[in-house]
Amino acid sequence: MFEELKTHFGKLVSLTPEEFAYVSSHFTSRKFRKHQFVAQQGSPVSHDFFVVKGLLKSSFVNEQGKEHILQLAMEDWWISDYQAYFNQTDATLDITCVEDVEVLCLSLANREKLCSELHQIEHFFRKKSNAGYIALQRRILSLMSQSAAERYHELLQMYPSLAQRLPKTLLASYLGVSRETLSRLSA
Amino acid sequence: MFEELKTHFGKLVSLTPEEFAYVSSHFTSRKFRKHQFVAQQGSPVSHDFFVVKGLLKSSFVNEQGKEHILQLAMEDWWISDYQAYFNQTDATLDITCVEDVEVLCLSLANREKLCSELHQIEHFFRKKSNAGYIALQRRILSLMSQSAAERYHELLQMYPSLAQRLPKTLLASYLGVSRETLSRLSA
Repeated sequence: MFEELKTHFGKLVSLTPEEFAYVSSHFTSRKFRKHQFVAQQGSPVSHDFFVVKGLLKSSFVNEQGKEHILQLAMEDWWISDYQAYFNQTDATLDITCVEDVEVLCLSLANREKLCSELHQIEHFFRKKSNAGYIALQRRILSLMSQSAAERYHELLQMYPSLAQRLPKTLLASYLGVSRETLSRLSA
Repeated sequence: MFEELKTHFGKLVSLTPEEFAYVSSHFTSRKFRKHQFVAQQGSPVSHDFFVVKGLLKSSFVNEQGKEHILQLAMEDWWISDYQAYFNQTDATLDITCVEDVEVLCLSLANREKLCSELHQIEHFFRKKSNAGYIALQRRILSLMSQSAAERYHELLQMYPSLAQRLPKTLLASYLGVSRETLSRLSA
């Protein structure tokens, strides 16, 4: 499963085999089952997770039990509760598995160590953070200014396989609409 | 005005006077008047802006002319349309001055050059990007799960001086409520 990580790093930086072996030695691999919690509101978030296989979501569950999905992550994406991870505070989000999942886990200490030791790794994570920032900017604009129908069609267009894999209830929660509204949109 | 930038960098990295002089030589200073556009929907975004003095906003204006404020930036903050800046595409946001403004401008080419030449600068911008990511995560959770009243009180608590300086119409637009609703909240 480190092959996927190697390809992933290779898209942004050139590491020698020795450098990559060193980098990958700072990751641990884990498997989670569908519905399992990878991080939980109120508990610390120990790792950032690189998805090798499967689909996860991060979501906020309010006091009334209503779930708001912040992000989805499938193969080749990263997911964590970054506020909690970077600030080493308790999670405000749940991260749970939509499918059976294989991830590679990176602790904050190991991330900072690698960034400090290898300029290229610092470069890699700066680029990833910029990309993540842009994705969140898009998400905010979408929440503020688009209709549910527009959000639905944009998701289908940008991530067709993701929309396919996602149960309809979760798709509705991600779009911020009721299950009934989604049925009308996707009819 | 480079004194402010020096203090700002000094919070995250240690640069020698020579290094800082080299870094600062890649910035240009500009002044804008209240209401002036720093970036405009549909045009390229040439720079990231470090705010030395004044207050700016980035906002999305929809086809009906309704303004949604994505972000505010005052002294010691950065602002740009990062999607447009990093991808070198046309802006989807307007960035305009709420007050008279002094900024230090960094082009993408100069940012990448500095990050490549100085590991510490790459570290600085990675940390800033992480912090920006966290701020957007908070903003999304707030938009998804908080009431207008909760958003208003959180803003007052976190950024009291910002809420003071911001005209009520813009404060309402940032919170996503009507001017009338805001009057009730702040009564």
